[in-house]
Amino acid sequence: MGVVVKLSGPRDPSASLAPLVALVEEDMAHVNRIILDRARSHVDLIPELARHLIDSGGKRLRPMLTLAAAKMCGYAGDGHVRLAASVEFMHTATLLHDDVVDESSLRRGKIAARLLWGNEASVLVGDYLLGQAFKMMVDVGSLGALRILADAAAIIAEGEVMQLATANNTETTEDDYLAVIDAKTAALFAAASEVGAVIAERPKSEAAALRSYGRNLGLAFQLVDDALDYSGEQSTLGKSVGDDFRDGKITLPVVLSYRRGNQDARAFWERTVKEGEIGEDDLDKAIDLIAQHNALADTMERARHYGAIARDALAIFPDDEIKSALLEAIEFSIDRPF
Amino acid sequence: MGVVVKLSGPRDPSASLAPLVALVEEDMAHVNRIILDRARSHVDLIPELARHLIDSGGKRLRPMLTLAAAKMCGYAGDGHVRLAASVEFMHTATLLHDDVVDESSLRRGKIAARLLWGNEASVLVGDYLLGQAFKMMVDVGSLGALRILADAAAIIAEGEVMQLATANNTETTEDDYLAVIDAKTAALFAAASEVGAVIAERPKSEAAALRSYGRNLGLAFQLVDDALDYSGEQSTLGKSVGDDFRDGKITLPVVLSYRRGNQDARAFWERTVKEGEIGEDDLDKAIDLIAQHNALADTMERARHYGAIARDALAIFPDDEIKSALLEAIEFSIDRPF
Repeated sequence: MGVVVKLSGPRDPSASLAPLVALVEEDMAHVNRIILDRARSHVDLIPELARHLIDSGGKRLRPMLTLAAAKMCGYAGDGHVRLAASVEFMHTATLLHDDVVDESSLRRGKIAARLLWGNEASVLVGDYLLGQAFKMMVDVGSLGALRILADAAAIIAEGEVMQLATANNTETTEDDYLAVIDAKTAALFAAASEVGAVIAERPKSEAAALRSYGRNLGLAFQLVDDALDYSGEQSTLGKSVGDDFRDGKITLPVVLSYRRGNQDARAFWERTVKEGEIGEDDLDKAIDLIAQHNALADTMERARHYGAIARDALAIFPDDEIKSALLEAIEFSIDRPF
Repeated sequence: MGVVVKLSGPRDPSASLAPLVALVEEDMAHVNRIILDRARSHVDLIPELARHLIDSGGKRLRPMLTLAAAKMCGYAGDGHVRLAASVEFMHTATLLHDDVVDESSLRRGKIAARLLWGNEASVLVGDYLLGQAFKMMVDVGSLGALRILADAAAIIAEGEVMQLATANNTETTEDDYLAVIDAKTAALFAAASEVGAVIAERPKSEAAALRSYGRNLGLAFQLVDDALDYSGEQSTLGKSVGDDFRDGKITLPVVLSYRRGNQDARAFWERTVKEGEIGEDDLDKAIDLIAQHNALADTMERARHYGAIARDALAIFPDDEIKSALLEAIEFSIDRPF
């Protein structure tokens, strides 16, 4: 525990989400009001549990994408704010259901809701937030945006099921892994960005560009997340280092280390992530193996690859401060320490 | 086990769903094709698990309501078929999540999916079906229908959370119980019926009438379901008699028996449904107490009360074979043996 391997490769520690946060600050305050308002219910457990998650913050990256994309596309109404709140609710619902599936104990640095209120409540409050998300989308009234977000909801669930199938499976290829993160993470980033262009009624080329930006940013984001699980510092990460390892999740660092490893290394991965026999020193051993096989550095290389695609996707938009903030968000997502 | 108390009160064993089934047969075949088609996925687990539930049948009462309501309103398009499939998917998703919450072992007479594929898969495939439901609704393109079904999704989840709060709580009043079944069951019956009028673009009065019909039918249906749990024959019921008792669910037969009982009776209910200390003979004892307090007969009386409201709600529609079939469905729902 607490073993920290510095991620190698070029880093830009000065990259920050601050410009993006500043540009959407006013709209985001509106989103936050809607979120608190919609998490209300006469059923006490719902606001309690929802607030536990909402108050614990998180970066709110997904709703920021919707707000920034709409702004970049010159959208003048207020539908983007409700779509952004919907996106955050979809994400929060996924987190609640994920925790049940993963049997997680920490989420965003706080005790996972399922341990405080039980799995039942996490399943059902997740369903409630999903219902509220669809209600808000319907209120906005854009069938185009509805279609994109409903598609994303189905794809995310499909991705989560795929992830179940890859769990504990050391035969998982990098392509299998990519298909999972494309569905479970990148689909919502893509939809969150695309709907900004769609409600602004911009041409298809701009919607497609924002979709591509979001998707590739999401892939990069998840790759880094999976690298951080073997390298981050627990206090800043807000979850436990080694969670994925203990859950038998087959993320790219493991896929690469398994494929590049000798018989002993493969036997180690089979005993631990496949069979679930994990001893006290095994996380350290796993981190050593991953370093030995350059698997963390290469996971970061993959993240940079998708980051570059995200960057080029935005090329058709004029250079201005929003575009610049969205580009910096790519760097931040790759170089973030948490 | 196997103790069967006949439900008292006037019964019409000749009431049948057959006329309704016959009237919507062609559309329902279409719905079934859509359901099988939409439960497809390249992720193997999804069609496997979805089909386990779908093949096990069930009455398909909810989608039939949508089809029949649209037909009664003279709807000529094919959107009602996709809305009906959405309604069934919403219902199936709820069943999957319910089984996780209730830790059920039987569902529609088959082993609950969660025992075959795990809780994780039940949660996630439920999410997938919900996503598909919303996709289909969006495809139909009626914002009015979307609003009604999205509202229902949020209310259903709220009802399920309320039910968690009443579980094991012997202080639950009849009003508390009604609020739960209104949300968890009647809301979808109401929405399923109402959308038939909405896509047919009929006046508000007809949409409201169908909503009222659906809601009250749903209340009656759930009341009878809860009565059957203390009286049905296991083989026809498709679930275990006494499931609610063992789960500590506070349904109306228990609410009434507890309130009408003497100190000993209350102590019995507190030990069993509140504390969960259930011995071998306790289900027989529970059934005896419920009979003694006339709680089953009065639960059926309540069901008849809501059935009567459902009947009057349809009064504004001309008398024809569809209306007649919908009215007979009320009788069937009350007098059904399973």
